Amino acid sequence: MEHKANLLRRRLLASAGGAVAWAGLGAPAFADSTEPAAQSNPAPVSDARPLPGYARWKDADSLIVHSANTIETRRAAFGSSGITPLNRLFIRNNVNPPSDDIMKDPDAWQVKIDGVANPRSFSVAELKTLGLESVAMVLQCSGNGRAYFPHDPSGTQWTVGAAGCVMFTGVPVKALLEATGGMLDDMQYMTGTGGEEMPAGLDPNTIMVERSVPLTAIEDSLLAWEINGEPLPLAHGGPLRMIVPGYTGVNNVKYIKQLAFTKEQSPANIQQNSYRMSPVGVSGNPEHDSVWENPPKSWINYPADPEQSVKAGKVTISGVAMGGMSEAEKIEVSTNGGKDWQEAEFIGPDLGKYAWRAFALVADLSAGEHQLASRVTNDDGQTQPEERVENNRGYINNSWRDHMVTVKAA
Amino acid sequence: MEHKANLLRRRLLASAGGAVAWAGLGAPAFADSTEPAAQSNPAPVSDARPLPGYARWKDADSLIVHSANTIETRRAAFGSSGITPLNRLFIRNNVNPPSDDIMKDPDAWQVKIDGVANPRSFSVAELKTLGLESVAMVLQCSGNGRAYFPHDPSGTQWTVGAAGCVMFTGVPVKALLEATGGMLDDMQYMTGTGGEEMPAGLDPNTIMVERSVPLTAIEDSLLAWEINGEPLPLAHGGPLRMIVPGYTGVNNVKYIKQLAFTKEQSPANIQQNSYRMSPVGVSGNPEHDSVWENPPKSWINYPADPEQSVKAGKVTISGVAMGGMSEAEKIEVSTNGGKDWQEAEFIGPDLGKYAWRAFALVADLSAGEHQLASRVTNDDGQTQPEERVENNRGYINNSWRDHMVTVKAA
Repeated sequence: MEHKANLLRRRLLASAGGAVAWAGLGAPAFADSTEPAAQSNPAPVSDARPLPGYARWKDADSLIVHSANTIETRRAAFGSSGITPLNRLFIRNNVNPPSDDIMKDPDAWQVKIDGVANPRSFSVAELKTLGLESVAMVLQCSGNGRAYFPHDPSGTQWTVGAAGCVMFTGVPVKALLEATGGMLDDMQYMTGTGGEEMPAGLDPNTIMVERSVPLTAIEDSLLAWEINGEPLPLAHGGPLRMIVPGYTGVNNVKYIKQLAFTKEQSPANIQQNSYRMSPVGVSGNPEHDSVWENPPKSWINYPADPEQSVKAGKVTISGVAMGGMSEAEKIEVSTNGGKDWQEAEFIGPDLGKYAWRAFALVADLSAGEHQLASRVTNDDGQTQPEERVENNRGYINNSWRDHMVTVKAA
Repeated sequence: MEHKANLLRRRLLASAGGAVAWAGLGAPAFADSTEPAAQSNPAPVSDARPLPGYARWKDADSLIVHSANTIETRRAAFGSSGITPLNRLFIRNNVNPPSDDIMKDPDAWQVKIDGVANPRSFSVAELKTLGLESVAMVLQCSGNGRAYFPHDPSGTQWTVGAAGCVMFTGVPVKALLEATGGMLDDMQYMTGTGGEEMPAGLDPNTIMVERSVPLTAIEDSLLAWEINGEPLPLAHGGPLRMIVPGYTGVNNVKYIKQLAFTKEQSPANIQQNSYRMSPVGVSGNPEHDSVWENPPKSWINYPADPEQSVKAGKVTISGVAMGGMSEAEKIEVSTNGGKDWQEAEFIGPDLGKYAWRAFALVADLSAGEHQLASRVTNDDGQTQPEERVENNRGYINNSWRDHMVTVKAA
């Protein structure tokens, strides 16, 4: 546990915000790598990694680069508008992204629709004639909050920043079903296949990004070509991404090349064995629950920096709160480590049940240390729990205690 | 009128979107200049001007640079998410922006509150302890749509792009009033003063940006330090901007250095004589209505390019619609120049009464030319009119006929 505490402390230092010098800007991108295992120490600040080429347009000061395929938003960089700016949004790729060539003519990208009466391919240009819808939603990596698990699960050691709230625009899956004559009988899942290039000589099931979600997810799902009002960039799954509002990041398949309605879940490893809620020490398999829906979760973004003190007296404590599959309805804040709670206020417009909302509470902080925590309750009456659900790979951590911060007022 | 038609046609060509080569990127910024008068022809595409230094971070392909202080969003660049990306948002400065030095420590910027029981100055850091609120709103230059007036009013020849819908975050003016003991008796206006540097030897009233709005505007007003989740940049009035939701751009005073409650409107020329609804040929004076509130308005963004044909058949017509001072409630689209109308659908979340909403209608366009128009009705029952309100300087044009586009299907 002491090792873990040190690791967390160094991580917090590394994410302490814009004041920290950000080395490596303009340096060549480091080679693509698989995610670092938990036992590898996070890079100290002086070794901060540069953004990889496909994400070079992002705001480096707002981000922590874990690897070329895992980039986290700093806790201080979320802002309070409810929508995460695109240049501050996290990135997590399961496989290296395809060549940027696929973005030369995004309207020409093809997606095949299968498991329907009249299976066929559509170009993005054709999809654009079928309808238009937008949804504001939290896009959150299944492993966000993994750094707080005490058993050091393998995978990227995300704290809070593998999440953002964004607006996706595209065609409703329901409109696609209508255009293809409807689903075949007895289908149970909606299965999306990513357009990543597969290395030769390997069983595709070991690598391909193909995810299945239950049919109830169809209702609000889109195939999207726009994010926050801009054409969807390669870094976030452009030209076309499967959007399953409420579901964790991996279920929103990037560069989607096939959308199929299927009787079974995908045979891919990423469906069968990864992203499963298996007990600590046990590898995932189809007997374990799949990681699909986001649970209710909130955290404080300001003040949150243990290295800097805030002025004692009135402080506006702020953060973000999501309801998961239903609206965030109540948000409470504690300034004494969860002993007492007071209700905070949501601010700004309500962007719908899949979005998060910024919240604020003007508190009086006396000189000294304070443990700040937040907990959300959603419209279904579910309250963010004190404890995480332990699981082998460290998925969907929504413990309010794990996300608590200690700040100093002076 | 023929001159005007040619001018408009050239302007449309110049704004025909990303396919057009954008010269001058990387070239030195041209010298600051006053806005071009209407009679000066718009620059042909090959002379496209580069972004000025303070706005160099914007997406040049999405913008039309009229001058260093007047930069318009291309009609094709708004997207359909309801929020305008910051790197595509228009810019209109009445006076050259202050030195970028004021952004080195934005929390140190000072604003004086006057016309209250306990007048005093606050730093932005102090404002941040008083509360937090966000509002989504259309920010629209009073002269947006000026290019469609037939009498060639002087001023920038904006078509649709001197507008955007953005999220501002800051402290409510009501919280400021509470912190300063409340307004003095008999005050009638809220008056904001911009922090631009004043050239020596000139009567400040001829230049300074100081605007007064009625006290009813207090209800939803903010002093804002954040836009779309990012710190407010100098180009949009950072470190601190007065935000008066529903009111045209000029009333949202940039780099605000004083917020005063006053018995009279500001003596500045920009309040007394400019931004007045005077008859054509008559200069503005205090007898004429001030340009304050946005009226209901909508326009089509796709398809909208007369130089490119769309494929005949199903086409998703889309655009944006704002209610002005109350919610946009109904949006209609015509494909035959306003003879017949059909109701279109709002898409995405409702961001509140001051925001615009994206809308869409899947229409069947036969081969040939089509005149596409849209008109919005707000929650107060006001419908966007067919005709503009004629006025000398070409303010607040919300005529649906002026904003109609002719497209070709093939």
